[in-house]
Amino acid sequence: MATATTSPRIDGGRLLERLATLGEVGSTGDGGCARLALTDDDRAGRDLVVTWMRDLGLDVRIDQVGNIIATFAGTEPELAPVMCGSHIDTVRTGGRYDGNYGVLAGLEVIESWLAVGLRPRRSLAVGVFTGEEGARFAPDMLGSLVYVGGLGIDEAHDALDAAGVRLADELDSIGYHGDTPCPGPTPHAFVELHIEQGPVLEADGVTIGAVTGVQGISWQELTITGQSNHAGTTPMALRHDPSVVVAELTMFVRRLTQQLGGHQVGTVGRVELFPNLINVIPARAVMTVDLRNTDPDRLRVAESAFADECRMLEQSEGVTIERRSLARFDPVEFDATMVDAVERVAGDLDLSVERLPSGAGHDAQMLARVCPAGMIFVPSVGEISHNPAEHTSPADLEAGANVLAVLLAELAELGAAG
Amino acid sequence: MATATTSPRIDGGRLLERLATLGEVGSTGDGGCARLALTDDDRAGRDLVVTWMRDLGLDVRIDQVGNIIATFAGTEPELAPVMCGSHIDTVRTGGRYDGNYGVLAGLEVIESWLAVGLRPRRSLAVGVFTGEEGARFAPDMLGSLVYVGGLGIDEAHDALDAAGVRLADELDSIGYHGDTPCPGPTPHAFVELHIEQGPVLEADGVTIGAVTGVQGISWQELTITGQSNHAGTTPMALRHDPSVVVAELTMFVRRLTQQLGGHQVGTVGRVELFPNLINVIPARAVMTVDLRNTDPDRLRVAESAFADECRMLEQSEGVTIERRSLARFDPVEFDATMVDAVERVAGDLDLSVERLPSGAGHDAQMLARVCPAGMIFVPSVGEISHNPAEHTSPADLEAGANVLAVLLAELAELGAAG
Repeated sequence: MATATTSPRIDGGRLLERLATLGEVGSTGDGGCARLALTDDDRAGRDLVVTWMRDLGLDVRIDQVGNIIATFAGTEPELAPVMCGSHIDTVRTGGRYDGNYGVLAGLEVIESWLAVGLRPRRSLAVGVFTGEEGARFAPDMLGSLVYVGGLGIDEAHDALDAAGVRLADELDSIGYHGDTPCPGPTPHAFVELHIEQGPVLEADGVTIGAVTGVQGISWQELTITGQSNHAGTTPMALRHDPSVVVAELTMFVRRLTQQLGGHQVGTVGRVELFPNLINVIPARAVMTVDLRNTDPDRLRVAESAFADECRMLEQSEGVTIERRSLARFDPVEFDATMVDAVERVAGDLDLSVERLPSGAGHDAQMLARVCPAGMIFVPSVGEISHNPAEHTSPADLEAGANVLAVLLAELAELGAAG
Repeated sequence: MATATTSPRIDGGRLLERLATLGEVGSTGDGGCARLALTDDDRAGRDLVVTWMRDLGLDVRIDQVGNIIATFAGTEPELAPVMCGSHIDTVRTGGRYDGNYGVLAGLEVIESWLAVGLRPRRSLAVGVFTGEEGARFAPDMLGSLVYVGGLGIDEAHDALDAAGVRLADELDSIGYHGDTPCPGPTPHAFVELHIEQGPVLEADGVTIGAVTGVQGISWQELTITGQSNHAGTTPMALRHDPSVVVAELTMFVRRLTQQLGGHQVGTVGRVELFPNLINVIPARAVMTVDLRNTDPDRLRVAESAFADECRMLEQSEGVTIERRSLARFDPVEFDATMVDAVERVAGDLDLSVERLPSGAGHDAQMLARVCPAGMIFVPSVGEISHNPAEHTSPADLEAGANVLAVLLAELAELGAAG
């Protein structure tokens, strides 16, 4: 890592204005955004961000999985670039900061350097990764996973959404099926600035989080097949009811998190019954289970206990349960040098800082497979995220972007040969 | 009741052929039918049945709620008519016999009388009642309820389906918004022939069921509002998760049926989560509960215990639960003379017969409010109904129609003045 470097302060007002403008694209009318990956709203958001990138004179490339990589050339462009970035896709009822903040703060850092005529030694790339949320195409963090070679481009292209639409067809449809090859060039280092989406920083009254790593994630989809029948005439003892099995498994997930304690969380976020009518015992149910833990061994214990419970219910309820893994990522520990650097830079800027793990998955955990990667968190008000009410104070948004600016200036050696 | 009257045997082949032909309308390709009330498929089924009615020379009237009433004039048409019938709407994954059988058997009885030049003293009307299943518009048995004046025509017209479409608009759209006033004329008596949709007759090896009454039904829709949040970052103890509350209530319904025993059944057939994504704790859930019992007091106990559980969960889970009654019918006991008559006629025809209650709701329970009403059941193979695999043997279908024929001949005094 380079010796301490300074960076001009970023322009907080300009950053907030861009966040507000991007937040209008796919606006849900209640302060939130709906820009599911590769929809027309996602295209509109991408078009806006690409326009801003071009206005800054950046070299904008679209790769084969639709990742947007905008590069501010350094004075020695043959060196591996430093990279920052995040994503701009959202869940169906998303907020304005999740992802957008990391992307637009990257552009803001470049604009603040351009404003004073500074150029770094290493090029600085801002990445907008495709389908980070996984809310439309599984797995989540798909774009960054493909970028680092963790998923083949053909397999990614064949990913289907719930309606059976193919990812490659949607890339074509919105005009973001680029030809820059995947996997992409290995960065010198990667930094992602993001809202915490959890309660820790706000509860502790701390402005900056130096993220130590990311929880492991296990996503499964279950298809439970029973016996459809009449809700009035079928005696309780003769039923094979998938709706009851969904309920048993949902309660099991809660008990499991209580038993394992610690950082174990579990969520049943999606349930569909077929035919889904008041007076018909369902023939079939589809449900998802999201299990996460910072401890890889405990996450495996949770998965194994859940699988055992499924097998037991198949016997006791007379149903069949097919399980399919939609995503599986072991917990990630970020490079210690990067965690230290975030902590030091925050301190240098007189900002309160603490170390914490991330409960959510992030593109940075994929980049951590190929280069030193780190994350900077800022507080989420009321710990609300994936929700239109998602909020972070303007002062904290500005503070986080200044930490990013100094860290990128160090990593890319701003002014070293400017 | 008239003294014993004979009737010519019905033509089983002709009845089966009509059942098969109607079963092709809205066919799901797997032996089943999807003719949700007032859809284009329902219209096609209605058009077919009306064509058959007109071919028999019947007087066909459409009333204000879309009920089809086809009358075979008696020799003394000023007398109150005897009525039979059922419905031809289905659940989304329905079979070929539920409802259709009672309607087409009524036409078959008339055709068998016409074939030998017999005419009853009282007119015989065959009713096809709108929206019996309740699978699209609530309450179930809507058409027959309006026919007997149990629900006002304006209220029925304003019923909305899940997509917010108004019943009256769909009546207009499919051309079945008639002008015959509701409530309709009070019949002398009403008989409904139907498949059992339960296990009793098959298990006992009996051909004919003399139905003693119908279970009481309580249908509720619940909207559970919690706090949407990120599935990875939100500690379990801070969640207000509607998905968990759906699971708690589903398990409670099962425990309740175990505690109450007897004929108590309970079903959660419909569940929807919003936004229904793998990595988002839902903001809201909508679920339905179908509770039934032959004992009115026990049904009230079940409803009250369920309401208590909802209030308890509002406290313990920090959610709000809105409950809305979609349908509520007390148990019905059929006229003893009618039950006796079904039993006697079956015996006269050398068919095995037993008394049993109906687990499902039927149009006959609405007609029972205004005239002596009864029902004839035939066995369901494998007790399967509301399912494409619904089946009854041809011999049983024919036997049931012959019981109907003799009973209608008695009630309408066939040949008394023919």
